[in-house]
Amino acid sequence: METWKQSPDSSNKPPFNIVLRPVGFVKNSVKEPILVADDDGISMQGQTDTSQENIRKTHENISEIIINEDLADILYGIEKYSHLVVLYWAHKVPEKSRSLTRVHPMGRKEFPLTGIFSTCSPARPNPVLMTVVRLLSRKGNVLEVAGLDAVDGSPVIDIKPYVKESYPLEDVLTPDWMQRIQKEVRERKK
Amino acid sequence: METWKQSPDSSNKPPFNIVLRPVGFVKNSVKEPILVADDDGISMQGQTDTSQENIRKTHENISEIIINEDLADILYGIEKYSHLVVLYWAHKVPEKSRSLTRVHPMGRKEFPLTGIFSTCSPARPNPVLMTVVRLLSRKGNVLEVAGLDAVDGSPVIDIKPYVKESYPLEDVLTPDWMQRIQKEVRERKK
Repeated sequence: METWKQSPDSSNKPPFNIVLRPVGFVKNSVKEPILVADDDGISMQGQTDTSQENIRKTHENISEIIINEDLADILYGIEKYSHLVVLYWAHKVPEKSRSLTRVHPMGRKEFPLTGIFSTCSPARPNPVLMTVVRLLSRKGNVLEVAGLDAVDGSPVIDIKPYVKESYPLEDVLTPDWMQRIQKEVRERKK
Repeated sequence: METWKQSPDSSNKPPFNIVLRPVGFVKNSVKEPILVADDDGISMQGQTDTSQENIRKTHENISEIIINEDLADILYGIEKYSHLVVLYWAHKVPEKSRSLTRVHPMGRKEFPLTGIFSTCSPARPNPVLMTVVRLLSRKGNVLEVAGLDAVDGSPVIDIKPYVKESYPLEDVLTPDWMQRIQKEVRERKK
């Protein structure tokens, strides 16, 4: 069943799945995710320093997005955008990690146990991840982009224009631990 | 099959579906989408003026996001964010509209036929829509948010923190027709 026709009621929900079909996949040199989901939650590959260096590098990573050939027409006009929103499937997240509800952000025990929806953890009930990328070029059904944080082979779910008017202009607040991660990444960029 | 274990190859793709489970649903007073998908593509409800007024109003719309009670713990700590990214399923998009490849943006014939991935059309191969919302409050498993452009009853797929460092700081380019839509919406806001 793909549509939810009745008014949903949280005490009496119909069984209901949404079925997605990949529209293409990512091709790049990143073979393993920086954050790895396991039974206990999530953990970072290597030391904190190495991982932050990897996060920093991600901003410059070049990837190809190869759209299924029968869909190539769906990219028509996309060259007019400088930035795109890419939704992809975190295919390396094990099925059972989808039932986690809290994790230590970035797998770092010094950060408080936090609800998954308050984190960017790839281990989530529906591991649909999102990155805003820079579009470098399009050749037929292949987009070359910079800054995509997906690993090689990730199935692509959707591509949307990035339009800055759809994002907050006002002040944005985040928790202390998130500010600390952002500060650490900034300092490594210098 | 939920994981794509083999190296994907666009000429020889395995049959492959991704199965999502809604984590909750949207409750608000919006009964019908502004853009309606039909056999010919997409069209706007009512006149252009009315639709733009509706788009403008969307920025102030108050919605509840009701998370499944067994998942309430997944929201822990979310109050520390001022803004969230909400992914939801456009459940009113008919199955056959998922195979459209080009549309006139906003259903307006004066705009060129454009690839779906170059538009924000809800009719897309995987109608997973995304909005950045303001978080007003959390009461248990219920979030009150402003600016969500989903209709009442939309299944929610994921909620993520909005962290401004993940979005472009540099100049952003969009096509002429998109600039025109944004300008029209801005002018109606005055």
